[in-house]
Amino acid sequence: MAADQHVVAVDVGGTSIKAALVDRDLRAVATLREPTRRNGEVADVGQIAELVNRLAAGHDVVGAGVAVPGIVDDGVGLVRAAVNLGWVDVPLRDEIAAGTDVPLLVRHDVRTGGLAEFTVGAGKGADDALFISVGTGIAAAVHVDGRTLGASGYAGEIGHVVVDPGGAVCGCGTRGCLETLAAAPAFARRYQERTGRTISDAAGVAGLLATDADARAVWQDAVNALATALLDAVTLFGPAIIIIGGGVAEAGETLVGPVREELYSRLRFQRRPEVVRAALGQDAGRVGAALLGWQAAKS
Amino acid sequence: MAADQHVVAVDVGGTSIKAALVDRDLRAVATLREPTRRNGEVADVGQIAELVNRLAAGHDVVGAGVAVPGIVDDGVGLVRAAVNLGWVDVPLRDEIAAGTDVPLLVRHDVRTGGLAEFTVGAGKGADDALFISVGTGIAAAVHVDGRTLGASGYAGEIGHVVVDPGGAVCGCGTRGCLETLAAAPAFARRYQERTGRTISDAAGVAGLLATDADARAVWQDAVNALATALLDAVTLFGPAIIIIGGGVAEAGETLVGPVREELYSRLRFQRRPEVVRAALGQDAGRVGAALLGWQAAKS
Repeated sequence: MAADQHVVAVDVGGTSIKAALVDRDLRAVATLREPTRRNGEVADVGQIAELVNRLAAGHDVVGAGVAVPGIVDDGVGLVRAAVNLGWVDVPLRDEIAAGTDVPLLVRHDVRTGGLAEFTVGAGKGADDALFISVGTGIAAAVHVDGRTLGASGYAGEIGHVVVDPGGAVCGCGTRGCLETLAAAPAFARRYQERTGRTISDAAGVAGLLATDADARAVWQDAVNALATALLDAVTLFGPAIIIIGGGVAEAGETLVGPVREELYSRLRFQRRPEVVRAALGQDAGRVGAALLGWQAAKS
Repeated sequence: MAADQHVVAVDVGGTSIKAALVDRDLRAVATLREPTRRNGEVADVGQIAELVNRLAAGHDVVGAGVAVPGIVDDGVGLVRAAVNLGWVDVPLRDEIAAGTDVPLLVRHDVRTGGLAEFTVGAGKGADDALFISVGTGIAAAVHVDGRTLGASGYAGEIGHVVVDPGGAVCGCGTRGCLETLAAAPAFARRYQERTGRTISDAAGVAGLLATDADARAVWQDAVNALATALLDAVTLFGPAIIIIGGGVAEAGETLVGPVREELYSRLRFQRRPEVVRAALGQDAGRVGAALLGWQAAKS
């Protein structure tokens, strides 16, 4: 392809939509960010095509990739359910395509991040890898035998694996699933329940680890919960490498180190995976969506 | 291929080796069964090639499939570990090939059974399916996006997912994994621990369900344990169908019915899979090995 060709990478969230014009080297040469536009509760799909068209104007844009949260059938670009966007059974790829001439692919946001980490990030070259995004929610992208699972959209919901059967009830309806202990909001909520003191977020809890036993207890509960769920995944999938990303993983080795240690202490016959922090950090979604855009250009 | 072509299907176990000459319609036209020959603790690989050659003599045999237990790299036919056979890092495909001219493929026994169920059995036509074999051990073959996982050999060890963190220690070293509650030997062991009375096996416990509260408790513990592990698998893999096979599943709906009910009661947002008994029963290994044999013939 010509050197001046570009793609558009779009990351759709419940609060904002981020879009970028990206070159062959996966560098963002222009970016846009807008609050997610809504008609009542329902996010306006038209905004996505508008962003693509605005970034494409005046450039040779050959493809676009769109990352969305929820239960997503990547194969046809169908969003079965996305609570934060008010979407149920939205044929997103077709609806965006009605508003732009740029060829495009749609994929679940965590699988998009996984695509980036497996292709150019920490999992590059690994046949069997697991990317877990620990943020407002928790989900995984699983790469087995050199291919990422989940065309049907139902795989990878590690955030809702039960790790504490007597624990709190999650928004998903499950008691004691991983998100109740290790998703970003759980850190502040559990610290407050324990101490009566408010704290901003997971980073706030991390900042108290040296001096506050309650912060350490909350952190260790999250570490144990992650190790429990990852042990299940290791037993079932056998990845060679586990890549931890998402907002909570911005804590770096403060999170990844204890998770690795706790997981390793529980392994028996299983393969011992590397456990590393995501290489692309907050850029994984954009890089993955750009890779999707280049795929769309070829298809 | 010519109508009179055949393949040899071999199922290698710690106690005996079963082999069959199989036609294009997957019917066994001749069978052999021998005790597993050993040099000390180590099973003799040479016996496998001998069985293939004896069945092939006088027939147009174009391929062979060999199913083996343990940690098996299907891609190259390497047995990383098979406790019951005393094998560690045995390049089984190459070693058998040294003793026969028949092209052959080697695969993990439960993935071989899964191949049969996914191809001509209860999972025929399903893109996303999970086959769980509940026998002396418990393992799964996972079929996602139309392909069976596990080329590296580490996937599918659902028998060692932790379902009862305070429970008994398994031979694998894990406390409270599924096998401690639901593998065939667990039924007799747990019934005896509970009552002081001995009983033959899982079928014996099943036979007492109508009249014996202890038998019911042991059975229900196994059902709950299976539901716990399968819920993890549903959350992580999202299969459209779960196929339950292995010796314990010979109990049919007595096992499958309560597992289905318990699993369904725990689903929240997850896909609701069909839960059915394996269609091929005890023939799954032979049929799968025969399918492998036909694959070997083509490759």
